[in-house]
Amino acid sequence: MSGNTFGKLFTVTTFGESHGPALGAIVDGCPPGLELSEADLQRDLDRRRPGSSRHTTQRREPDQVRILSGVFEGRTTGTPIGLMIENTDQRSKDYSRIAEQFRPAHADYTYHHKYGTRDYRGGGRSSARETAMRVAAGAIAKAWLAGQGIQVRGYMSQLGPIAIDFKGWEGVDDNPFFCPDPDSLPQLEAYMDQLRRDQDSVGAKITVVAEGVPVGLGEPVFDRLDADLAHGLMSINAVKGVEIGDGFDVVAQRGSEHRDEMTPEGFLSNHAGGVLGGISSGQPVVAHLALKPTSSITQPGRSIDIHGNAVEVVTKGRHDPCVGIRATPIAEAMMALTLMDHLLRHRAQNGDVRVDTPRLGQA
Amino acid sequence: MSGNTFGKLFTVTTFGESHGPALGAIVDGCPPGLELSEADLQRDLDRRRPGSSRHTTQRREPDQVRILSGVFEGRTTGTPIGLMIENTDQRSKDYSRIAEQFRPAHADYTYHHKYGTRDYRGGGRSSARETAMRVAAGAIAKAWLAGQGIQVRGYMSQLGPIAIDFKGWEGVDDNPFFCPDPDSLPQLEAYMDQLRRDQDSVGAKITVVAEGVPVGLGEPVFDRLDADLAHGLMSINAVKGVEIGDGFDVVAQRGSEHRDEMTPEGFLSNHAGGVLGGISSGQPVVAHLALKPTSSITQPGRSIDIHGNAVEVVTKGRHDPCVGIRATPIAEAMMALTLMDHLLRHRAQNGDVRVDTPRLGQA
Amino acid sequence: MSGNTFGKLFTVTTFGESHGPALGAIVDGCPPGLELSEADLQRDLDRRRPGSSRHTTQRREPDQVRILSGVFEGRTTGTPIGLMIENTDQRSKDYSRIAEQFRPAHADYTYHHKYGTRDYRGGGRSSARETAMRVAAGAIAKAWLAGQGIQVRGYMSQLGPIAIDFKGWEGVDDNPFFCPDPDSLPQLEAYMDQLRRDQDSVGAKITVVAEGVPVGLGEPVFDRLDADLAHGLMSINAVKGVEIGDGFDVVAQRGSEHRDEMTPEGFLSNHAGGVLGGISSGQPVVAHLALKPTSSITQPGRSIDIHGNAVEVVTKGRHDPCVGIRATPIAEAMMALTLMDHLLRHRAQNGDVRVDTPRLGQA
Amino acid sequence: MSGNTFGKLFTVTTFGESHGPALGAIVDGCPPGLELSEADLQRDLDRRRPGSSRHTTQRREPDQVRILSGVFEGRTTGTPIGLMIENTDQRSKDYSRIAEQFRPAHADYTYHHKYGTRDYRGGGRSSARETAMRVAAGAIAKAWLAGQGIQVRGYMSQLGPIAIDFKGWEGVDDNPFFCPDPDSLPQLEAYMDQLRRDQDSVGAKITVVAEGVPVGLGEPVFDRLDADLAHGLMSINAVKGVEIGDGFDVVAQRGSEHRDEMTPEGFLSNHAGGVLGGISSGQPVVAHLALKPTSSITQPGRSIDIHGNAVEVVTKGRHDPCVGIRATPIAEAMMALTLMDHLLRHRAQNGDVRVDTPRLGQA
Repeated sequence: MSGNTFGKLFTVTTFGESHGPALGAIVDGCPPGLELSEADLQRDLDRRRPGSSRHTTQRREPDQVRILSGVFEGRTTGTPIGLMIENTDQRSKDYSRIAEQFRPAHADYTYHHKYGTRDYRGGGRSSARETAMRVAAGAIAKAWLAGQGIQVRGYMSQLGPIAIDFKGWEGVDDNPFFCPDPDSLPQLEAYMDQLRRDQDSVGAKITVVAEGVPVGLGEPVFDRLDADLAHGLMSINAVKGVEIGDGFDVVAQRGSEHRDEMTPEGFLSNHAGGVLGGISSGQPVVAHLALKPTSSITQPGRSIDIHGNAVEVVTKGRHDPCVGIRATPIAEAMMALTLMDHLLRHRAQNGDVRVDTPRLGQA
Repeated sequence: MSGNTFGKLFTVTTFGESHGPALGAIVDGCPPGLELSEADLQRDLDRRRPGSSRHTTQRREPDQVRILSGVFEGRTTGTPIGLMIENTDQRSKDYSRIAEQFRPAHADYTYHHKYGTRDYRGGGRSSARETAMRVAAGAIAKAWLAGQGIQVRGYMSQLGPIAIDFKGWEGVDDNPFFCPDPDSLPQLEAYMDQLRRDQDSVGAKITVVAEGVPVGLGEPVFDRLDADLAHGLMSINAVKGVEIGDGFDVVAQRGSEHRDEMTPEGFLSNHAGGVLGGISSGQPVVAHLALKPTSSITQPGRSIDIHGNAVEVVTKGRHDPCVGIRATPIAEAMMALTLMDHLLRHRAQNGDVRVDTPRLGQA
Repeated sequence: MSGNTFGKLFTVTTFGESHGPALGAIVDGCPPGLELSEADLQRDLDRRRPGSSRHTTQRREPDQVRILSGVFEGRTTGTPIGLMIENTDQRSKDYSRIAEQFRPAHADYTYHHKYGTRDYRGGGRSSARETAMRVAAGAIAKAWLAGQGIQVRGYMSQLGPIAIDFKGWEGVDDNPFFCPDPDSLPQLEAYMDQLRRDQDSVGAKITVVAEGVPVGLGEPVFDRLDADLAHGLMSINAVKGVEIGDGFDVVAQRGSEHRDEMTPEGFLSNHAGGVLGGISSGQPVVAHLALKPTSSITQPGRSIDIHGNAVEVVTKGRHDPCVGIRATPIAEAMMALTLMDHLLRHRAQNGDVRVDTPRLGQA
Repeated sequence: MSGNTFGKLFTVTTFGESHGPALGAIVDGCPPGLELSEADLQRDLDRRRPGSSRHTTQRREPDQVRILSGVFEGRTTGTPIGLMIENTDQRSKDYSRIAEQFRPAHADYTYHHKYGTRDYRGGGRSSARETAMRVAAGAIAKAWLAGQGIQVRGYMSQLGPIAIDFKGWEGVDDNPFFCPDPDSLPQLEAYMDQLRRDQDSVGAKITVVAEGVPVGLGEPVFDRLDADLAHGLMSINAVKGVEIGDGFDVVAQRGSEHRDEMTPEGFLSNHAGGVLGGISSGQPVVAHLALKPTSSITQPGRSIDIHGNAVEVVTKGRHDPCVGIRATPIAEAMMALTLMDHLLRHRAQNGDVRVDTPRLGQA
C-alpha cells in the first residue's frame, strides 16, 4: 500500500482518477533556487497531450497545470511543490455497463478484487491519464538536470512490426510519433490508418537516452541505477519489458564482444548502456521499453461480469490505438526523475569525494 | 546511498565483500510462527553454490549459513533474523595488478569513481558473491509463501544462442544448468566445453514463475507488482533486461491477439504474465531476465589504469564462463522476496476486504 | 530533504505556504470501503480554525477542504486521497520589512540559511497554517480508527502557570481552550485578557488520549509506538517536549511505585501510558506535549537583518497569543495518524496471529 | 513491521536477542574515506558496558565488536558496514518460570500478545542489551561528525530526586554515573547504596548536547531535526519523555522571556535548544530524556501468567538498579546517528547553497 510515491530523496507522490475533479502531485526534495514556471511544465505536458493528431485518442484536455506551492518569485524554495491539473473533459454519462463488466486485459478485474470496489469511470486510477502528473514532475527534474549538464530525450524505436532507425534528434518532436527517422513517417502513418480500419491496436518500443550523466550515480546492491530505472519504466501503464543498453541481445553475445573496452580517449563502445555494476559510467544511459497494444478495441471480446457471468465486451469511447505513441514524454519523465533522485543520493554520501583519475569521454 | 535494503515491509539488508571476513543479512518483518532452520536456507544456497559442476567457477565455498537471531525453538519470533556466512576460500594473495587497473566491463571503474576507493580483492562488494545472502533471505520468503500456497521456481530458457523449451519442472534441479528440457543437455554441455576452449563467456536467459499467487498483489501506481519485480530482478549482477509475460514480443502484437480473454472457467491465455494494471491477476506470474556474458575472460582486453594510462588486461582467477548458469536460484529469491513483501503490504490495507465475485482459475 | 511525508504504510504528504494559492495533502494507503465525506474532515478543521474566539488570531479563513480523489460514491476506493484548501485571506500587502529581517525565535533565520531563500509572506512554509492539512488527514484516520473501536481525544492540561484538572470529556469541545474543567474557564479567560494587555504570549501543555487501542501496536526496536508518537507530536510547530504516561515524573519514581501491576481483572494503574517495550498494552495511550509561547509579540526584540546588521523587530499582524489553544485538534491528528499507520503495520505482519491468553481490561 | 532500521540516508539496522548467539548491525550510507577501526567503536562500547561499577548489573560481557565489511585498509569504502558482537555470558539455565509469567511493567506481556510467541530468555529482543549495537553504530557517526567539527556528549542531569548541576565536561567520563559535578558523587553513591538495600530501582534524567552543528539541518515539516531526535531518543529502552531546549518549562514561560534574541555577535540565549522551525540554528543542540526505574526488582509484584492466572513475580537475575546510569552513551549514539543522517540529507538538497549572511556565533 501507499505505492503512490516514486523516489527516495527527490520524491513524487501523485493522486487522481480519470474522471475525478483533478489530478495532482507533490514534488518533494527539489533543491532551492531553480528557476521554474508553469510554462516549463506545460511544454512536456503538451507533448503528451491527447488529441494532437488523428493517431491518438480524441479526448481533448487542455491539461493546464498549476503550481500551488514551493515556488516563490520564479524560483524553487526547497519546500514541496504542489501541482494540479483539473479534469475538464470527463464525459461520465453512461457507465452502467462498464461498472459491472471486466474489460479483458484491463485493470478492471484486478482493481475490483484488490479493493473490493473501484471508480470505473474511464478506468479510474488505472487510466493512463495518471501519467500526466509524471510528465509534469519529470519536467521539474529535467529543468534541474539541465543545469547539471544532463539531457534526457526519447524516441520511438519500433511501431508494431516496423523497426525505426535512429537518424538523429532533429525532428523527433515535430511528428506525432516521436519518430527519429523522417523517411519512416509515411509508412507509420499508413500503418496506423490501416490499424484503425481494422479496429485494432498495436504495441510499440520506446528508447530513452540520458546524455551528460556523470560517472558515479547508483547505489548498489539493490538501488542500482539500472534497477531503479527498471522500476520507474516498468511502472508506466502498458509496459511489459525494460532493457538497459543491449538488453536481451546480451543473451546470445560473447564476453569478448560485449565488453566495452576503454582507452585513455574513452570507451570504445556502449553495449552496457552507460551502467556498470549498477553505477553510471559517464557514457550515455540508454534504456528501451516495450508497450503492449491497448485492449480498448471495438472488436468484441469474451469476458465475465462482477457476478461471474460470461459477457461479450466491446470497448467504446475515445482510446489510443497505440498507447506507445504518447509514451515518449512519460518515459523521459521517469528517467529524469530517477536520475535526479540518484544524483541527490550520490551527492549526500560523496559530496566531497575527489578522484584524480581522468574521467573518460563518451563513446 | 544506503541502497542495500530491498523491500518495504518485509525487508532484506545485506553486507559483505567477496574477500572480507563474512557476508551477512538482516531479514526484518517476517511474521512470527514460521518453522525455520538453517537447513531450509542451505538447500537453496547449495543450488547456487559455485564449484558444483565443471561449468561454473572452481572457487569452493561451503557457504554455510548461520541464523543468529529471530528464530526461537525452531520458529520465527517476528524479530529481525540475522544471517551470516563466513568467507573461507579467499585467495587474496596478489592483487597488486588489479588494484591499479580497471577490468573492462566490470564495476572497477565505476566503484573507483563513485567512492574514490574500493576493495579490489575479488571485486569486493560488486562481486556476485553478494547474491548468496539474497538466496538465503529468499529461502525464508519461499518457506513463508509455501504456507500461503505460493510456489516460486525458475529455469534457464536460453544459453547463448540455444533456446531451451520448457518441458516441465521435473529434472530442472537435477542438472547444473537448471535446464527444463533433458534433451537439450548434451547440446548445452558441448557448447560450454567449446566456450571454455575459446576462452570466452556467454549470456543467458532465465525464466521465473510463481504459481498460486492470489489476485490483488501490487500497489499502483508506482509500486506495481511488475515494477517492483523489475527492480528486484534488474538489481541482480549482470542482468540487462527484464520482461513480464510476453515482454518485448508485445511490441509487434495486436490488441486482439494480446488481450487475455476471460470466461467463467478462467483466463484463456496469459500473455500478461499474471499482472494487469500492476496487480496480480491470479494467473501465474511470469518473468524473464537477460544476463550478460561475464567480462572476466582470459582474452586480453584494452583498458586503462587508475592513472589514465592504457593497459592490456587479462582476467585470471576462477570465474564462471556463463554467470547465468547459477542465476536461477538468485532470480527465484528476488521474485520470492518481492511477492512476500507485496503480500504483506496487501494484507495491511485490505485485510478485511471481502469480494463475492468468484476468482478465476489459472490459464 | 523530502521530509514532508508522515507514516510508513498509511502516509500523509503535505504542501503549501501560508500565503500561497492553496494548501494540500495526499493521503495514501487508506483501506477501501471507508465512508468518507468532506463534512467528516470539516468538523475537525472547524475545531482548529482561527478566529473562533477572541483568544486566537483574528485571521479568518473558512478552511473549506475539498476531496479531489480516492473517494467514489461516498466511500474510499483504496487509491490516494487528494485534499486541498484554497487560501483566501492572505493579506500579502507589505512584507518589505519582514523580507529582510529575522524575527527572533522564528524560523526566518534557519529557513534563510538552509535554503538560501524563503517565502517570507506570513512565515511561508514554516507557518502553523500548514497544520490544517494534518487535521484534515487526521480526520480520515480518526474515522477509520472509530470503525476499529479506537477513539482519540485531547484537552488542554496547562495554560501558562495554570494547571487544569481533567474532570471529564464532556464540555471539552464547547469552550475555546479545549479545557476539561469548566470551573477553570473564568481563570483562563482572565489570564488571556491580561496577557493581551501585556502584549505578550504564553506556553501551554496538551494531553492526548487514545482509548480502545488493542494490545500489540508498535514495531521495536526503532519504530516503537511511543517513538513514532514522539516523532509525530514533536513535529508540530512550537512543540518542545513530549511525554508518554508519567513522562518526566518517572525520573524521581521508584520501580516499586512505577510498575503497573496486573491482575486477572486488568492493570492496576497506567504509569506507562499504555506502552510497554514500545508496544501498546491495551490500556489507554496517553501523551503530553509542551508548546512554547509564540515569539510573535508586539514588544520590540533585538535581532539582525539578512545583511547581519542589528535591528529592532516588532511583530505585527494577526497572531495567536497562545498557540497551544488551537493545538489540541492537531495533536489528536498526529496521534490518530500514528495509530492508524501502526495498526496497518501490525496487521501486515501478524494478520493471522491468534493468542489464547485473555487480554486485560483497561485500568 | 520491519521497524529495526533507523535513519533515512545513513541507516542502522540491528538484530539480536539478549541470549542468542550474537548481536549485529548493518550501517549503510557511510561516506567513503573515513578512518575507522574496531578500537574506535570499542571505546564507546566500554563506556556502556555492564559490570564496570557496583551500581550496574553484574552481568559481564566483553562486548567485543567485530567489523565484518565496509572498511578496507583502515578506511570506509562507502559500502555497508557489518558489525557483530558475540554473546558470551548468557546464563540461560532456568527460564521455566519466566517463560509462563509476565513480569509487571516489562515487555513480556506486549511481546507475547503482539507476536503470539517470544524468546523469553533475558528479555529476548526487548532487552536493553540491544542498545550495544546502537552504541557501536553511533561511534561511527561520532567519528564522521568529528571530522565535520561536531561533537556529541552527554551527562546525567538527575538521579531519582537528586538534580545534578552541570559544572563542566571534565570528569564526566571518569565516574560511573557520567555525573558532571564531582561534588555530587558522594551523594549519588550513598543514594544508590541505600536503593540496593531497599531492593528497589529509580529513574534518571540524561542530557545530550551537540556542539558545532551548522545552521540548516532538519527537513520540515515532518522530518524536523527535533522530531527525528525525539524519535531516536524515545526509541531507547525505558525512555518516557524527551525535551528539546527548555522542554516542558516553556509551558509557563512568556514569549518575551523565551525568545532567543540575536545580535550581530550571536544569539543571546538558547531556550530553543538549538532548533528553530525544526532546523538547527547553529547553537548547541540540547536534549533531555527521562528514563523510568526498571521494573526488575526483587520486591514481589502482582501479575498474571500466560493462562490468565494471578501470580506473584519476583525478578531475580542481574539487573541495573538505575538503567539511566548506563544510558548516556546510548543517548549520545542516537543523537549522533540523527545528526549524521540529517547532515547527509541536507547536503543532498543544498549541496551548493551559498548564503552571504554571516552565521551567528553560539550563545
